[in-house]
Amino acid sequence: MARINDHYLKLKAGYLFPEIARRVRAFAEAHPDAPIIKMGIGDVTEPLPEACRTAMIRAVEEMGDPATFRGYGPEQGYEWLRQAIAQHDFQARGCDIDASEIFVSDGSKCDCGNILDILGHENTIAVTDPVYPVYVDTNVMAGHTGPANDRGEYAGLIYLPITAENQFTASIPTQKVDVIYLCFPNNPTGAVATCEHLQEWVNYARAHGSLILFDAAYEAYISEPGIPHSIYEVEGARECAIEFRSFSKTAGFTGTRCAFTVVPKSLKGQAGDGSRVDLWSLWYRRQSTKFNGVSYIVQRGAEAVYTEAGQAQVKGLIRFYLENARIIREQLMAAGIQVYGGVNAPYVWVKAPAGLSSWDFFDKLLHRCHVVGTPGSGFGSAGEGYFRLSAFNSRANVEEAMRRITSTF
Amino acid sequence: MARINDHYLKLKAGYLFPEIARRVRAFAEAHPDAPIIKMGIGDVTEPLPEACRTAMIRAVEEMGDPATFRGYGPEQGYEWLRQAIAQHDFQARGCDIDASEIFVSDGSKCDCGNILDILGHENTIAVTDPVYPVYVDTNVMAGHTGPANDRGEYAGLIYLPITAENQFTASIPTQKVDVIYLCFPNNPTGAVATCEHLQEWVNYARAHGSLILFDAAYEAYISEPGIPHSIYEVEGARECAIEFRSFSKTAGFTGTRCAFTVVPKSLKGQAGDGSRVDLWSLWYRRQSTKFNGVSYIVQRGAEAVYTEAGQAQVKGLIRFYLENARIIREQLMAAGIQVYGGVNAPYVWVKAPAGLSSWDFFDKLLHRCHVVGTPGSGFGSAGEGYFRLSAFNSRANVEEAMRRITSTF
Repeated sequence: MARINDHYLKLKAGYLFPEIARRVRAFAEAHPDAPIIKMGIGDVTEPLPEACRTAMIRAVEEMGDPATFRGYGPEQGYEWLRQAIAQHDFQARGCDIDASEIFVSDGSKCDCGNILDILGHENTIAVTDPVYPVYVDTNVMAGHTGPANDRGEYAGLIYLPITAENQFTASIPTQKVDVIYLCFPNNPTGAVATCEHLQEWVNYARAHGSLILFDAAYEAYISEPGIPHSIYEVEGARECAIEFRSFSKTAGFTGTRCAFTVVPKSLKGQAGDGSRVDLWSLWYRRQSTKFNGVSYIVQRGAEAVYTEAGQAQVKGLIRFYLENARIIREQLMAAGIQVYGGVNAPYVWVKAPAGLSSWDFFDKLLHRCHVVGTPGSGFGSAGEGYFRLSAFNSRANVEEAMRRITSTF
Repeated sequence: MARINDHYLKLKAGYLFPEIARRVRAFAEAHPDAPIIKMGIGDVTEPLPEACRTAMIRAVEEMGDPATFRGYGPEQGYEWLRQAIAQHDFQARGCDIDASEIFVSDGSKCDCGNILDILGHENTIAVTDPVYPVYVDTNVMAGHTGPANDRGEYAGLIYLPITAENQFTASIPTQKVDVIYLCFPNNPTGAVATCEHLQEWVNYARAHGSLILFDAAYEAYISEPGIPHSIYEVEGARECAIEFRSFSKTAGFTGTRCAFTVVPKSLKGQAGDGSRVDLWSLWYRRQSTKFNGVSYIVQRGAEAVYTEAGQAQVKGLIRFYLENARIIREQLMAAGIQVYGGVNAPYVWVKAPAGLSSWDFFDKLLHRCHVVGTPGSGFGSAGEGYFRLSAFNSRANVEEAMRRITSTF
């Protein structure tokens, strides 16, 4: 009989969000009239920018005319989109990134997982704790870990705690690690990294030949000056970092699907015989062979993000969600609850009051306030006692949720 | 330094289509006025059906209203699309396939490659020769093969020749293989499999516990009655087969991107401890963790394929391309060239005249007729001496290409 990938059997049964969905469903069935407000999954709620919609409708119409019909596009994305990305997101910020180093894809989640295809199984992998679960789960699936312990930590992975004590920025490891996942602005804590902190990471990576997988899906939410939006704003990052970006949270594309990954041509990995190999060439081959590019229609929508109208509309969306985050932060603080994040990120990281565990707070919030959030412990054992609230919601829902929480706790 | 996946270094440098593109580019640069007609890559040319465009424009408009905006959808596809697929493509043909067994994706190429994620490395893998290169390359990348020999055959893979001698249907292997890739209607030969032939395969697979990966991307081109469109028309296939389907060639979606994979819940694989594991659960987990679903807009376009208007428009497209195939077949035959396929498939498999090799015929066709096709040897050593012509083109181009070829050879 055909053999399966046994590593899948090591995965802890409940991926965080399905478990949340299960508890919410059970509660809703028992209390069908409870007006539940969902602030759990980080999914946008506001309409897609008009500039994107207009561009997509035009693209659909082009598909109806043989003269402008588009079949297979380049697997790496259309040149006009890669150029717009390279120019606006990188060159305009002083980053030395070329359009050919941009790989357009249908999602950062996919890219974060698929990137392991081009890496060997011998690497020591470090993740932060708490962490976006996909980094961990995809390494488990690829066979890079042993089994999980009771706290959900997989043998073989290096966990770098990010806590209030280190301002939610991962401490540089004392041992040598080959691959490091970093996410700033951070999901779930909402923390950001300064240039100095990222420079320490880049210096560490270059000294040890490590590869940094830098997830910048939330960079558009950076509202304070002086905070790097890209790791390539830091000297030497072209030699050690891959960056993941997405239109999901920037332009409301969670249901429309477009993202991109930056693989600098100067980035090297090591083959078994000790020779150095371009990671760009490997990723190019991976994407050419296992991916067919993003829908032409969607790429035209993403391109419109970089027009003058698109930029104004996207900035309006970000302002709207950041104002939600401000309301959450300030109301909870006024109620005496300790909060972090929410200034340069759409997530507020809440210290569960009265020493409650993450899941106890989840259940209390659901049952007493009919508000759904995400238990911090679901992101890793160092997230125990914390709770993530997402600012992706309507203003009315955010205000109502805060009224309920502050009058209960 | 971070280690790379060494298996990538075993890949033969030129994936077939980039090598074709390189030769065409060189020729076009030397002869900028030559009116080149491309019949190489199997990419559709006719407009997207109106029903699909109308549905997609409506979906884009919905994205502009908070009340109908869609964020993250189910990773496995929206229920309405999975239902439409299960009903029209399977239940209507007597196949016992449920909507929950349909996994909507952004492409069959992706699915064919990604399916290896859930399988172990211990399996003996069989492919036909000639074969769609992605089946082979993704196994090389996953480390399931040794190096390639001079004929481009990778050590460890079982190659099953499909030739004129066995009517281009792969002969049942004499040894035990765990995973078998089959593609009918076949790319590149255009051959189809009868129910009896598929039943032999299913019987073999059930007797040996093998898994059949059945690629039916071209099923819509089956024009003769009695030929199975799905492997699930054959008894027992639910116990041994995964089927890949796509809207690319059916509804002109190569640039729009939508496909699906069928994983029956009755399908089992074996874990290292000998226990039996549902492949459905593994694929569900894989897609939930490493994929974010297809664009809502595109799924609405795919759904429209199943409306009455959509069906009529899609059938018109297929008729158009099949008429192209008929013209290619008949003109070449009249010129004394031996051809296969092109009746139930958009590909005509041409025996290169005068004993020419595949690449020699490619170069002659390019230089003398300014027509681009695909060398059969690029699909495997048993394709040497053959040539694939695609029927995806305008009528005028097909007729002009045939005039040039028949007046030259």
